[in-house]
Order: sequence, then C-alpha cells, then structure tokens
Amino acid sequence: MPVKLTAPEALSLLPVRGVQLGFAKAYVRKPNRKDVLVITLAEGSRVAGVFTKNRFCAAPVILCKDFLAQKTDIRALLVNTGCANAGTGEDGLNRAEQSCVVLGNLLNINTNQVLPFSTGVILEPLPVDKVIAGLPAAIENLKEDNWLNAAEAIMTTDIVAKGTSRRLMLGGKQVTITGISKGSGMIHPNMATMLGYIATDAAISQDALESIIQYAVNKSFNCITVDGDTSTNDSLIMMATNQAGSAEITEKNTDFTTLRDVLTDVAIELAQAIVRDGEGATKFMTVTVEAGKNETECRKVAYAIAHSPLIKTAFFASDPNLGRILAAIGYAGIDDLDVNALQLYLGDVLVAENGGRAASYREEQGAAIMQESDILVRVVLNRGKENITIWTCDFSYDYVKINADYRS
Amino acid sequence: MPVKLTAPEALSLLPVRGVQLGFAKAYVRKPNRKDVLVITLAEGSRVAGVFTKNRFCAAPVILCKDFLAQKTDIRALLVNTGCANAGTGEDGLNRAEQSCVVLGNLLNINTNQVLPFSTGVILEPLPVDKVIAGLPAAIENLKEDNWLNAAEAIMTTDIVAKGTSRRLMLGGKQVTITGISKGSGMIHPNMATMLGYIATDAAISQDALESIIQYAVNKSFNCITVDGDTSTNDSLIMMATNQAGSAEITEKNTDFTTLRDVLTDVAIELAQAIVRDGEGATKFMTVTVEAGKNETECRKVAYAIAHSPLIKTAFFASDPNLGRILAAIGYAGIDDLDVNALQLYLGDVLVAENGGRAASYREEQGAAIMQESDILVRVVLNRGKENITIWTCDFSYDYVKINADYRS
Repeated sequence: MPVKLTAPEALSLLPVRGVQLGFAKAYVRKPNRKDVLVITLAEGSRVAGVFTKNRFCAAPVILCKDFLAQKTDIRALLVNTGCANAGTGEDGLNRAEQSCVVLGNLLNINTNQVLPFSTGVILEPLPVDKVIAGLPAAIENLKEDNWLNAAEAIMTTDIVAKGTSRRLMLGGKQVTITGISKGSGMIHPNMATMLGYIATDAAISQDALESIIQYAVNKSFNCITVDGDTSTNDSLIMMATNQAGSAEITEKNTDFTTLRDVLTDVAIELAQAIVRDGEGATKFMTVTVEAGKNETECRKVAYAIAHSPLIKTAFFASDPNLGRILAAIGYAGIDDLDVNALQLYLGDVLVAENGGRAASYREEQGAAIMQESDILVRVVLNRGKENITIWTCDFSYDYVKINADYRS
Repeated sequence: MPVKLTAPEALSLLPVRGVQLGFAKAYVRKPNRKDVLVITLAEGSRVAGVFTKNRFCAAPVILCKDFLAQKTDIRALLVNTGCANAGTGEDGLNRAEQSCVVLGNLLNINTNQVLPFSTGVILEPLPVDKVIAGLPAAIENLKEDNWLNAAEAIMTTDIVAKGTSRRLMLGGKQVTITGISKGSGMIHPNMATMLGYIATDAAISQDALESIIQYAVNKSFNCITVDGDTSTNDSLIMMATNQAGSAEITEKNTDFTTLRDVLTDVAIELAQAIVRDGEGATKFMTVTVEAGKNETECRKVAYAIAHSPLIKTAFFASDPNLGRILAAIGYAGIDDLDVNALQLYLGDVLVAENGGRAASYREEQGAAIMQESDILVRVVLNRGKENITIWTCDFSYDYVKINADYRS
C-alpha cells in the first residue's frame, strides 16, 4: 500500500487556464481503463522537457526531443499506457509519428506540434490503431477541470493517482500550478520510469522555463529510486500557458526564484509520490548524506544504501539490521573513506561512529524507529561540505509479486 | 531451492594431505549447529588470500591481511559463523586477535600464524568467549577426512554445503585439490559475501600461488552476483601443503598453467555453487556479453542485467518480458552505444536486433526457454573483441523472506 499518500479523491487538482485534458478508454492493453490522454495547450504556451538518458530510449521520446528541438509551438500532448513503444526500432518511430499525424489533423495543428508519450511493456509493437481510435472520445471530453482523470489515465502499476496544485501571487496576479505524475517501478535517477506533466498559467520565457525544469528535475525526479532500473520512457514536461495575465518571467526577473522554487516543490511532491507508491512499498525512506567532499561521493553513498536489496528488505521487516547500512557505505566506491570518521544516524539516534556501533546505541531505539512508516537514514561523512538527500522505499514480497505478474 | 546443486552427501570431498579440519558447535548465535571451524596446515605450507574491497572490512579481514603481509608461515585458520565481527571498531580487532592468541597457544604456534575469519550479522560484538570455548572440541576432532563437516560448519543462510574436489597427475605424482565455499546473499563482484578455502597437496611457490589466486578469483568469484551487495568479510584462501611429493610449481614451470587452470576450475565451480544456492534462487542465469570494445563495458552491461530486480523477478515468473533486458543494456552506461547494432539472444534464440524485436522471434520461443532452470542471456554488442561471462540467479519471494527474517 502507498505510504502516506493522499487519496485521489482528496487531491483537489486545480484547473490551469489554457490547459485542457481529455481521456479515452482505448483498450490498448487491458479492457475498460483510461489509457489514452490528450492535453491541449492555448496558443502562445511555452513547453520544455527532460527525458531519459537510456540508450534504448523509446520512439516517442525520440520524437519529443526532435519536435522540441525544432522549436515549434507545441499545442498538444498525447499519452498512452499499456505499451511503451520502446525497443521497437524504425517501426516504432513510424507508429508514434502516425499517432501525432492523426491527432494533429483532428486538432488542426501540425504533426510536430504534438508531443507523444508511451508507457507500459517494452519490446512490443504499439497498437497504434487502438490509440488513434481512442482520440475522438478523448477530444470530445477535453476540459480544464479534468486533471484527476488525466492522473488516472497515465497510471500503469501505480495504485493511486498522483497530483498536486499550488497557487501563488505573481506581480499582483493569481497564478496556478498543477502537476501529475505516474510511475512506481523501474524508478531510478536520470530519471524514474515516470511521466510527469506540470502546467502553470504564468508567462515564462523559454530560457527561464528550461532553466527551471533542469533545476527542478535535479532536486526531485533525479533524487528518487525504487529499484535502480532506468526506464526507456521517462519524460517530464513543463508547460506555461501565459493565461494568468502576469508579466513574463525571465531569469533576470525578481520573481524568477519564487516561481522556480514553487515549481520545484511541485516536482518534489510528485517525485516523492512515486516513491510512496513504489511497487510493494510499505516504508518511505529519506537518505541524507552530509559533509561529503563533493556531490558525486554523497550520491554514491546515498544510492548504495537506497539500492541495496539487503537494506530494503530489512526495512520491510522493520529489523534494525543496521550493519547492512555500514556495509553499503563501505562498498559505495569512496576509495579513501575513513570509516572511523563517519557517523550513521537512524532518525535522530546515533547508531554508529568510530568504525562501530555507538556506545550510546540501544537496539530498542532502532527497533522503535523501524516501526515508523517514514524513516530517515542519515550519514555524516565528515570529509567536506556537500550534502544530498534522496528518497526511496523498502523492498517487499509485493515488489516481487507485482513484477513477476506485470505482463500476465 | 538451490538450482541443480549437488547434494552434500554426494559431494565426495577428497582429503588433502597436510590439511586437517575440525569443527565445534559453539552456540555463537544459534544452538546446536556447527559454527566454529579450525583448519591446520602442515609445516612448509604456502598460503595466499584475496579479500573484500569494502572500506568497512571486518576485523578478521584486517588481521588476515596483516598476518599475510608479515609473510609468517600460516599454520592454522579459524572460522566462525553467526557474527561477522564487522563494524565493530577497535574492540572487534581485539576480539579477533584474542581468538588467534588462544588457538595459537592451543596449537603451539604464534598468534600471527593463525588466520581468523568471521561471517554473520554485522555491527554486533563477536562473542569471542563462545568461539574460544569451542576450540578444544574443534581441535579434538581435527582430521584430514573432514571436508564435508567443514563445508557445513561455514554455512549461514546457505541451504546446502558447497565443495568440490579434483585429482591430477603432476610430474608423475598424484595431486589432490579440494575446495569449499559458503555464501548466498550479499553476493557481488569484488567479491561475494563468501568464504572460500581451496587446498592442494601440491608444492607451489609463493609467487605462483599468489598469481594463481588472482587469476582464479577474476574468473570466478568476481563474476558472480546475487543482490549487488559487497560484503565486509569476503575472503578466499588458497593453500598448498607440499605433501604430494611433486616438484615445486613456479610461474616458469610447464605445469603452471595446468595446475592454475584446475584450481581456477575449482574456484568457478565453488563460485557458481554460491549463485545456485543464491537466497531464494529458482533459476541460474549465465550472462554473456560479447564483442565489446573493452572488458569494462562488457562488465557494465552484464551487471546492469544481472542486478536488475525487474529482470530477476521476470525470470522468477518465467515471463519472457525481454524488453527489460534491452532497458538494462540501454542504461548500463555506454554513452556511445548504438542500440541498432546489437543483438540479444535468449539461449540460442535471437530476440532483438535493429533496435527492436527480431522479425523471426516468437513469444513461444522465449516462453519455452524461460521454463528451464539454467538460462543463458547473450548480448552481442558488435563494437569490438572483448567478451565476459558472469553468473547470477533470479529474484523470488524467498529472497525477501530470507532477508527480512535473517536476524530473527
């Protein structure tokens, strides 16, 4: 079960002026589920994207990058679940493009003004006819107040829909931000098997939007992991529709950092939601590595902990078998690490120092913290000034069950 | 259940002249199990070791390295299970040394002629009094024909004892090799959470023995993974007792490669046995990466596949969800990888080429191979001439169960 994640009916996702969303049940893979989503954007909207670094990136990812590089005015997004259209070669590209052609025709825009996205099983051909057949119904129900349906339409093994909204005043005008995300397995930095869509009705220059999305993704989707697998289809899109009547935000604008930080906060909440809904997750783990020489070594230690199946299963069992954390720190790849100089904390309890268990540590303390559903693992390296924080979840029977059953 | 692993009663482990083994039930952690092992070596024996690269290496590993560096004549080995004596700081070193002092006194040898080994839970103090109290009983039953008992005495979460023997003629003299190993979780290159002891009655020079152990470990224990965790306690020891009456083998000797290859073969069998007995394993996977530019990139791809929980759970489910393998190849970290140039085979069936599913591939073929218990995953990168082969196992409910229950 998701770990402390807001139920979808309580999400209260706010409409964003200039963004309409419509879904269809297109039977792409399974009957009777929302599996096609169309998003349309008002004229003059700005769009930026960050995509997977997987060399086997999916056909729709290749097209998205291509269309964005052409600097066309993106006016629509098309998402299907049930099939990733990845590992599908030239034929996959043709099918993805075909879906953009048809949606472009239906909306009276160009093919390269449509960004395509797919998520689901890899190495199988996209049933593009089904996707296309679903488009009229999706267009039929396009409306601004459809974010919850949209969040549901992009789910795969997710248990709950994920979304959040913010409102803020920008130069005297009220601005709205709403974002949705999906993903729960194949979650890794650079990035998760995730799709994320964050829209605002503020006006943002293209340069500022691209700066913000990079900043936000490094603080959010690049700081989560469920199983260490990096997907072929990861995509995060930020959209600014310029419908709020606020002045255009550029990087020189005093409101730039305000807006950037709120958008980043939305991205963090969406990223954490993916971990909280991690496949089979019963615990949400925050791993903080402090006082490292550089960010790289902090990340190495944090991910060694966050990827260790031994640690993740111990957390599932609520067993303070904390030696496994020391072992992970030890093999993280810092060659000159002085294990006697570091401290390990669980929550606010000092567990290890001077190369061994802290004299003050009592097993009952660790056992008590292990009962909680949100747990902080904190490593203080005492080698420098860099810190990082990442988020992950535990590893349960249900992870195996979900991933052994996924295609059946 | 272990995957096609010889039952212990059928192991037929041959005595090696000059090597005596004795065990005790010392109640280190659990009642009524063999948990202390003493091995003695004839005078004039040569010993070499390879140890974990984990920065949090255990106290006994530190002592082993120290004593071997002193080039003393090693005459005894002392192994306990139930406690790793790792993450135990200065106190852990004192306890490990104390066990060597006592065994040295009992055997009338020096402390630094005893190599200590521990395996079990990390971050807990070694109950050295219990280990010491077990020594007289272990010494009492020292004998050459005790390898199976020794293999059992070093088990932790292993389901079956692991060992193998070889005989060969060397310069007209019969030479015997017997090895045992333990380990089933926290298994990773550099090395497994494993202990391995390989003895021969051949005469081998110290230089030749050290060359052989490095060669063998790179072909065996550094080519296996269960869960990607590198232990604090990994140790492989090779011993040559010079009791067979054969001439001393040096690196210049024509029999050098013969003996090296047989010892390596023993190491490979012991390493594979660890994977076959991998925690919760139901399938044994051989991952071969061919035609890479260099060994490093071949290893990256092989381990990306072998570490992926998504792939390992799909194998557990016998589900040919092979797109997950493409995804792993894609995120393995080869930045200039041309995904259209590579081929993926399952067994001898071509699954993917030209960036997508092979035209000839049929789901039934993949499904049939997935039913087998020994499965080959073969990736041909078509970029160069280097190949590597590693071994791993699938990821089952029982992996989670074993590791969630380990301390309780």
